[in-house]
Amino acid sequence: MSSERLIYLPLGGAGEIGMNAYVYGYGKPGEERLILVDLGVAFPDMDTSPGVDLIFADITWLKERADRLEAVFVTHAHEDHVGAVAHCYGALNVPVYARAFTANLARRKMEEQGHPEDAVRTVSAWPETVTAGPFKVGFVPISHSIPESAGLVIDTPAGRVVHSGDFKIDANPVVGEAFDPELWAEVAQSGVRALVCDSTNVFSAHPGRSESELGPAITELVGEAGGMVVATTFASNVARVKTLAEAGQRAGRSVVLLGRAMRRMIEAAVETGVLADFPKTISPEEAQEIPRENVMLIVTGSQGERRAASAQLARGKYRGLELADGDLFLFSSKTIPGNERDVIRIINQLSEKGVDVVDDRTDRYHVSGHANRPDLERLHALIDPQMVIPMHGEHRHLREHAKLAEAGGRAGVVAVNGMMLDLGGNAPKVADYVETGRTYLDGSVQIGALDGVVRDRIRMALNGHVTVTVILDEEDEPLGEPWCDLKGLPETGSSRAALVDVLEEDLNQFLMRAGDKTLRDDDKLEEELRRIARQTAMSEIGRKPEVTVVVSRMR
Amino acid sequence: MSSERLIYLPLGGAGEIGMNAYVYGYGKPGEERLILVDLGVAFPDMDTSPGVDLIFADITWLKERADRLEAVFVTHAHEDHVGAVAHCYGALNVPVYARAFTANLARRKMEEQGHPEDAVRTVSAWPETVTAGPFKVGFVPISHSIPESAGLVIDTPAGRVVHSGDFKIDANPVVGEAFDPELWAEVAQSGVRALVCDSTNVFSAHPGRSESELGPAITELVGEAGGMVVATTFASNVARVKTLAEAGQRAGRSVVLLGRAMRRMIEAAVETGVLADFPKTISPEEAQEIPRENVMLIVTGSQGERRAASAQLARGKYRGLELADGDLFLFSSKTIPGNERDVIRIINQLSEKGVDVVDDRTDRYHVSGHANRPDLERLHALIDPQMVIPMHGEHRHLREHAKLAEAGGRAGVVAVNGMMLDLGGNAPKVADYVETGRTYLDGSVQIGALDGVVRDRIRMALNGHVTVTVILDEEDEPLGEPWCDLKGLPETGSSRAALVDVLEEDLNQFLMRAGDKTLRDDDKLEEELRRIARQTAMSEIGRKPEVTVVVSRMR
Repeated sequence: MSSERLIYLPLGGAGEIGMNAYVYGYGKPGEERLILVDLGVAFPDMDTSPGVDLIFADITWLKERADRLEAVFVTHAHEDHVGAVAHCYGALNVPVYARAFTANLARRKMEEQGHPEDAVRTVSAWPETVTAGPFKVGFVPISHSIPESAGLVIDTPAGRVVHSGDFKIDANPVVGEAFDPELWAEVAQSGVRALVCDSTNVFSAHPGRSESELGPAITELVGEAGGMVVATTFASNVARVKTLAEAGQRAGRSVVLLGRAMRRMIEAAVETGVLADFPKTISPEEAQEIPRENVMLIVTGSQGERRAASAQLARGKYRGLELADGDLFLFSSKTIPGNERDVIRIINQLSEKGVDVVDDRTDRYHVSGHANRPDLERLHALIDPQMVIPMHGEHRHLREHAKLAEAGGRAGVVAVNGMMLDLGGNAPKVADYVETGRTYLDGSVQIGALDGVVRDRIRMALNGHVTVTVILDEEDEPLGEPWCDLKGLPETGSSRAALVDVLEEDLNQFLMRAGDKTLRDDDKLEEELRRIARQTAMSEIGRKPEVTVVVSRMR
Repeated sequence: MSSERLIYLPLGGAGEIGMNAYVYGYGKPGEERLILVDLGVAFPDMDTSPGVDLIFADITWLKERADRLEAVFVTHAHEDHVGAVAHCYGALNVPVYARAFTANLARRKMEEQGHPEDAVRTVSAWPETVTAGPFKVGFVPISHSIPESAGLVIDTPAGRVVHSGDFKIDANPVVGEAFDPELWAEVAQSGVRALVCDSTNVFSAHPGRSESELGPAITELVGEAGGMVVATTFASNVARVKTLAEAGQRAGRSVVLLGRAMRRMIEAAVETGVLADFPKTISPEEAQEIPRENVMLIVTGSQGERRAASAQLARGKYRGLELADGDLFLFSSKTIPGNERDVIRIINQLSEKGVDVVDDRTDRYHVSGHANRPDLERLHALIDPQMVIPMHGEHRHLREHAKLAEAGGRAGVVAVNGMMLDLGGNAPKVADYVETGRTYLDGSVQIGALDGVVRDRIRMALNGHVTVTVILDEEDEPLGEPWCDLKGLPETGSSRAALVDVLEEDLNQFLMRAGDKTLRDDDKLEEELRRIARQTAMSEIGRKPEVTVVVSRMR
């Protein structure tokens, strides 16, 4: 019988930025007791996942081993870390541990999905720990762009692992705890086997800037503005929302929070005592009663989300408020790659209204929540682990981060989703490859990314759709002519006749000539009708549509 | 009878970057003789135009006045300026004027579409002019990121208009003519009524850099590389391709050009005498025979296009060549907003292969082809027009550029697509609003963007599709049960039964209870069946699909 081992297995987040899900296990091979760190979502896009609501890691591997799972630990309340907890709770059914602010938001999600709120348990900051099977897990405060982020200290019989969570090195994060080098040095003192570390900003060469550096610039900008001021940022960046609100207050403006996520976050921060002294806010209705130069809106939708407050304000009226010539709109945010078009659409709509836009091309009004390259080096040095395992990054980030670790004289390894590492030796060793993937929340149903559902949607979007209906009588002879219904296809093609008529004519010609053998064979008939429909469409409109053939038999 | 006037009417390109099409007219209102400057394309995306091949300006207004159109003038050979010429030639049927390199490429397009190549007429550079009705048009060389770009000098009875075309101020563009301030001063000497001017880089505050500045950095990078070197850039940037090839040559590497567009551009440049002394190239087959450290590939696909050489090399083998650990891949290009995801996908695939990627985050290996803000100011001053009309930009660019003109003491106006200006006075005056839009080339058919075709495709992609088939007998009674075919929908929903079964059951229940009046009324029956299908789907899977109802009657 083999001896115990310590394993690490990313199911999501190692190979993309989003849908984080990291498994740790300790025990005899195949019998390890397991914990899961984070269970987040990624967001769909029209190119790859049209119609999908949310994406998360395929946790089949974990579900099949649910009896070995002790608990879920959530490092912080960003959607890519906590967003799937409630959606997957039914399948895992273990306690969820988090700090107060994160737990507050996680409970709201559990309630929405009809799960018991008390499955989410609040943990105090280190040195408090939670025992989960062979693991002892502590939440060490670490600065990030949301309150109460934690790096996890995971003690195992094989030694200590530090899971950084998302972090930056910020000595003055405005809200929440500063990065505390002495605390981390203390954690590291007894020796750390592995540092599993955020890789997001490994390509950013300069040291990261503090959240607190933005205050003066934002205050100046808002102070000089003439009309209404609107600022958008990530709702979860409570510190930024506070900085913005205070800038408004200093400029003699009344502050309005717009967007459900914005109000929810501030509410959670106040409820959990994370946020004190937030400026008084007024309602949109009250804002309509005061001069626009005395109003500041802080709104959701920094990524151009079509239904968020910013997009609605850019299009027209929102909750009785409307932007006008001379107003100022500030993006206190970074556009995440892939969202550029949506953000630019808003900027142009604002431009049409005569609103001046300050966007993210300057670095004056936004700082990142992630550690830049020199900050990563600093954490490596501070924790001084035997090995560095980059996580929270696309392949390019993980690879660069592993190189950085190696350059610092530490073992670094690129472990992508599904790659199980044995952390027991001096360097990480691949123990297994596990099948992983993506689960789509699609309406109210969870489907696999490779189930073919989304593939068919993409095909209909690219090619259009034809329904061909044929009725056959008791003798398997065509009863009347076939007919077609088109969706997403041009009405006429090269022959200038209606495409539907040309299709029906060609299909009818075929049916009239078809032999008994074909007419009696559903599969054969369907295949031929599809082939002809596609071929006719190709010659008429230069494209082969998706075809649904419906054959009805009277017998 | 009213007197003559000079009009300007953008049909495309003023409100977006792409699909340029600018009309000028001179004559009595409603009887102006017209010319068109540029007729380009924009590129579709999955969000707004799935399945579409190309987008260009809706030229209905111009088609209806084709008898008044004298000619088309093409400033340069970028797709957003020349791409729709051949697709629209049939509707316009007037001569197309361009300089030799542009004409060479335009003729290839005409040939592909089966139009006479001699409709494209080559014009020499200024001081040669073409007389087209009341207009005299000259092509003044101006530097840009493609050979033989021209600004147009358009002389009219109402004075001189300068249409900048796309341009930058480059004293040493490597290939083609340098920006010549003396020539432009000469053009301006007799007075310019209006400068219609490129706005692309109005937000770039620093003076633009010369194409020639890249040579040393690229040469150094390629010189230090160990494995195979691959560089991608816009195929039309002949100067850049030359710089890259020369860097390869200097490093003792044999150069391979990969991708049809790349070879076509170099061919056109050589044929028209624009490009001399291009390093000798070898074929991909020859490249396989020499050590990889002696090979340099210059490839298409800098925007991550899935079928281009770069994407194919990132995925696997392409024309017998395959990348490996230690190779270098250089993006000598900028990622156009909206293409980030596609480019990042390639970078990650290359990372998986162990290829080192140098991307556009540094400005060392790419310069823009458009005039930055200080360069725009310089052209304003040099031409010293009565008015500046910003073009080639989204609304935000046009607005900023008009402000810049005003700040320089010149009249500036934001004229978006469809806004007809009368340029006769001291400041531009809106003369009319014309309906404009987008035409989609969809397979082999041209459709209107608002025809509903693409809207239906998007709906199918977002919602999935159900075909409901019902047969009614001679008495209008249901013959058998209704059935459903699903596409792009999950197989099971909340009731755990097959979605198709639940749908058919509910539809059958309805049919059995339906009154004669409903069963006899096709529209009513269809509406009810659609409603029930959507309602059942909503409760099963939380989504309302698109529904095609096919009712067949035996009578």
